[in-house]
Amino acid sequence: MSETAVNKPVAAIVGGGVIGGGWAARFLLHGWRVQVHDPHPKARERIDEVLANARLSLPALADFPMPAEGDLVFAGSIEAAVAGATWIQESVPEELALKHRVIAEIEKHAPTSAIIGSSTSGFKPGELQEGARHPGRILVTHPFNPVYLLPLAEVVSGDAVGAEVRDRACKHLKSIGMYPLIVRKEIDAHIADRFLEAVWREALWLVNDDIATTEEIDNAIRYGFGLRWAQMGLFETYRLAGGEAGMAHFIAQFGPCLQWPWTKLTDVPELTDELVQKIADQSDRQSGAYSIRELERIRDRNLVGILRALKDRDWGAGAILKAHDQDLAGSETATLPVDIDSGKPLHMIDLFVLPAWIDYNGHMTEFRYVQVFSDTCDRLLLMIGMDSEYVASGCSYYTAETHTMQLGEIGVDERIYSTAQVLMADTKRLHVFYRLHATNDDRVLASTEAMYLHVHRESGKVCDASPDIVANAKSIADAHAALPRPEAAGRFVGQRKTQP
Amino acid sequence: MSETAVNKPVAAIVGGGVIGGGWAARFLLHGWRVQVHDPHPKARERIDEVLANARLSLPALADFPMPAEGDLVFAGSIEAAVAGATWIQESVPEELALKHRVIAEIEKHAPTSAIIGSSTSGFKPGELQEGARHPGRILVTHPFNPVYLLPLAEVVSGDAVGAEVRDRACKHLKSIGMYPLIVRKEIDAHIADRFLEAVWREALWLVNDDIATTEEIDNAIRYGFGLRWAQMGLFETYRLAGGEAGMAHFIAQFGPCLQWPWTKLTDVPELTDELVQKIADQSDRQSGAYSIRELERIRDRNLVGILRALKDRDWGAGAILKAHDQDLAGSETATLPVDIDSGKPLHMIDLFVLPAWIDYNGHMTEFRYVQVFSDTCDRLLLMIGMDSEYVASGCSYYTAETHTMQLGEIGVDERIYSTAQVLMADTKRLHVFYRLHATNDDRVLASTEAMYLHVHRESGKVCDASPDIVANAKSIADAHAALPRPEAAGRFVGQRKTQP
Repeated sequence: MSETAVNKPVAAIVGGGVIGGGWAARFLLHGWRVQVHDPHPKARERIDEVLANARLSLPALADFPMPAEGDLVFAGSIEAAVAGATWIQESVPEELALKHRVIAEIEKHAPTSAIIGSSTSGFKPGELQEGARHPGRILVTHPFNPVYLLPLAEVVSGDAVGAEVRDRACKHLKSIGMYPLIVRKEIDAHIADRFLEAVWREALWLVNDDIATTEEIDNAIRYGFGLRWAQMGLFETYRLAGGEAGMAHFIAQFGPCLQWPWTKLTDVPELTDELVQKIADQSDRQSGAYSIRELERIRDRNLVGILRALKDRDWGAGAILKAHDQDLAGSETATLPVDIDSGKPLHMIDLFVLPAWIDYNGHMTEFRYVQVFSDTCDRLLLMIGMDSEYVASGCSYYTAETHTMQLGEIGVDERIYSTAQVLMADTKRLHVFYRLHATNDDRVLASTEAMYLHVHRESGKVCDASPDIVANAKSIADAHAALPRPEAAGRFVGQRKTQP
Repeated sequence: MSETAVNKPVAAIVGGGVIGGGWAARFLLHGWRVQVHDPHPKARERIDEVLANARLSLPALADFPMPAEGDLVFAGSIEAAVAGATWIQESVPEELALKHRVIAEIEKHAPTSAIIGSSTSGFKPGELQEGARHPGRILVTHPFNPVYLLPLAEVVSGDAVGAEVRDRACKHLKSIGMYPLIVRKEIDAHIADRFLEAVWREALWLVNDDIATTEEIDNAIRYGFGLRWAQMGLFETYRLAGGEAGMAHFIAQFGPCLQWPWTKLTDVPELTDELVQKIADQSDRQSGAYSIRELERIRDRNLVGILRALKDRDWGAGAILKAHDQDLAGSETATLPVDIDSGKPLHMIDLFVLPAWIDYNGHMTEFRYVQVFSDTCDRLLLMIGMDSEYVASGCSYYTAETHTMQLGEIGVDERIYSTAQVLMADTKRLHVFYRLHATNDDRVLASTEAMYLHVHRESGKVCDASPDIVANAKSIADAHAALPRPEAAGRFVGQRKTQP
């Protein structure tokens, strides 16, 4: 064992499929030494694949450096895997007899202080602990695929496990970035899988009865309530649907549906006054710190963020938005605006400051200014004729350099707009001065001076733009020649305000 | 009616609660004239509230300008609301007799070409069409709250509605950014609400039996499978769980659970060979264009995007990540690195290029360079002692100006790192030169020269930094005085490469 390994905690992964591999990746990328045992001939290959995925994604969630990756070793036996382990994660197939055999072998060799977590979806800790030597350190720690990205781990400890072990288990799970949800009562399928099972059963009926295909069902989820559940879950979402009147009102309104054939799954609890009150009280404790209006704003900001993330990736609901953009853009033709000689810089784009654009000083952050100028540049290039067809033909303008002055501050939800003044255009170059203004008082928040070069993309060489584009760019530059030259143009960083 | 209004299509909104208000907002923000009728005394107030939310969020989804907002008018009667309407959306309470009365009144006054969509969750189009004069243009168009953000609209037309009307309805829904999901068979609760109802019933049991609170249930959803469903839904997610062996394998593996008490909702279809094959075939048609490995990568990128969006907003799973960052940062103390006089600029941060950072040229886009330099600045400021405590005390460094040179290109998933060279530090100013390198060959991708000013945040005035911070900054500047001055420092935009 190397010196480094001695200082690192050891996680033993017993069973190395998609779930075991996900656990291995989470521990490894948080600096643990990971010792895997799985007799399957393809175990190593499968772990390597999961790990490759995890390396590409998990570090992208952190804004601080992750610890140096731990060592991964494959052990020929359970005995070798659990040697020196602080945590042992069992992820073997869902057969109780098999799990009992594996746990017995783990107990024979593991340090007595080691926690034994099981990834089981279905078995209760009491069932796993049957016949164990030290049942008090065996608990369910049920993760969700992909384990290296989704934070949820359901922790079900049952009566045999003391608070010290449970707390220690939660501490370890938190240290690898997970959210331990303590399930207070042992129950089949814990909590989350009960919902998954109900939905799965309903989905099987819909496919069985030819009501909907698998794709239609997935679309019904991911374009609608799936987006809501990614951020608020079921009850907080319904609290909003109930509005200021509250949860009890919501239940009164939708309670009757429980008697209607809205699902083939029909065993229903009676909506007693006690149950309604219990739900309303729990919802108040959960969400009562916010007004309905505040929660709506929070929900909407979350949805905008989620939808924009999906739009960046052109997937799911984001692909719908992308396609819709094309409708909105349909009227945007690559033609010069009529007012290029209005005696003012061109008015370019109108936006408002999104929550994600705010830095710790409470203002729109530096790189978001540049993002707006970059979007403004795209609009300008479209105006002079650089449409997607032109880009597809092999050439486009590249940004060579920019000089940005931050001149004012602006907070969230404020409206802003950008302008463009073309300083110079020739066959290969475009020199532009942008300003970002607050809409309410027109004050300048930032300016950017930018030089673009027309480049043949494959060769990376600077080349002439098409005659149409050059003519368009020059016509704006000519119209703008009459405008006062911006004081900040030609300035270098740190230069005194009055130029010689 | 103004001249503008004549040219705009008209949507009549009958019933103006949260759902009707959401429809009104979607139509208005897409340039339609909207005529609302709701006899409720607070209808106008409620619509205004929904509209205020929508104006803050819906435009943030588009990257092209939205049409000019349409006119909103409140009509004293259904007759006035439906005058000249192209689309009529009925969102009155879920009582069939009431809906019949409202639809009869709509039919009496609406243009015969108008489509009548109902927001009903529970009634089938056949039920709504009973006794109608023109049943062939009455259909269910069931949206999801918030209507102005979630794209899904279930379109259930039934036998009485012809393809022309249904297609026209879908066209209109698409034009306001929605995804019309055609529900091919009339069924109680359509598709999505069947799942919501099943989950709701299961959740009521869990609360009723004191297994979990509303908050625990929401956390079980939003930290786990809710994140999956926001992008892939149920079947595509399980296709991944089944791995290369495919859907039939997955069903074989988890099929037995159908007989287990994993939910209190127990009516279960028989898993015949035909049903298994049907699901596997549909799943192939839905997702077969991608390998499992490709789908996993897509899923992971989506999850990273969603999780980071939530992290920006410090909410849900994103709040877990934020808290975890503090653990990762715990070891990052505000102290100078030991190697400030190593004869090299300081090595600052290591990253890899995320999919969202790529522009249409296929390379990391301009403002993401600036984002990395901005993050690098944060790290540098932390090094010299500007920790969160210092910021909380009222002062921090603001970026005054930057000059960025783009020198190379880099594609997705490549590793990069940044360096910092302190050119000058005094009590109020910090002058830094950054470089961004490709990790594999150390080539420089971009540089930024930046000037920061130490500012008292409330007054916005430049002031002296604390003596410790000044001393730390100067010690780096002194160590870096021996480094060659970067050629690009002091340069202005467009300057020829060799300085005089």
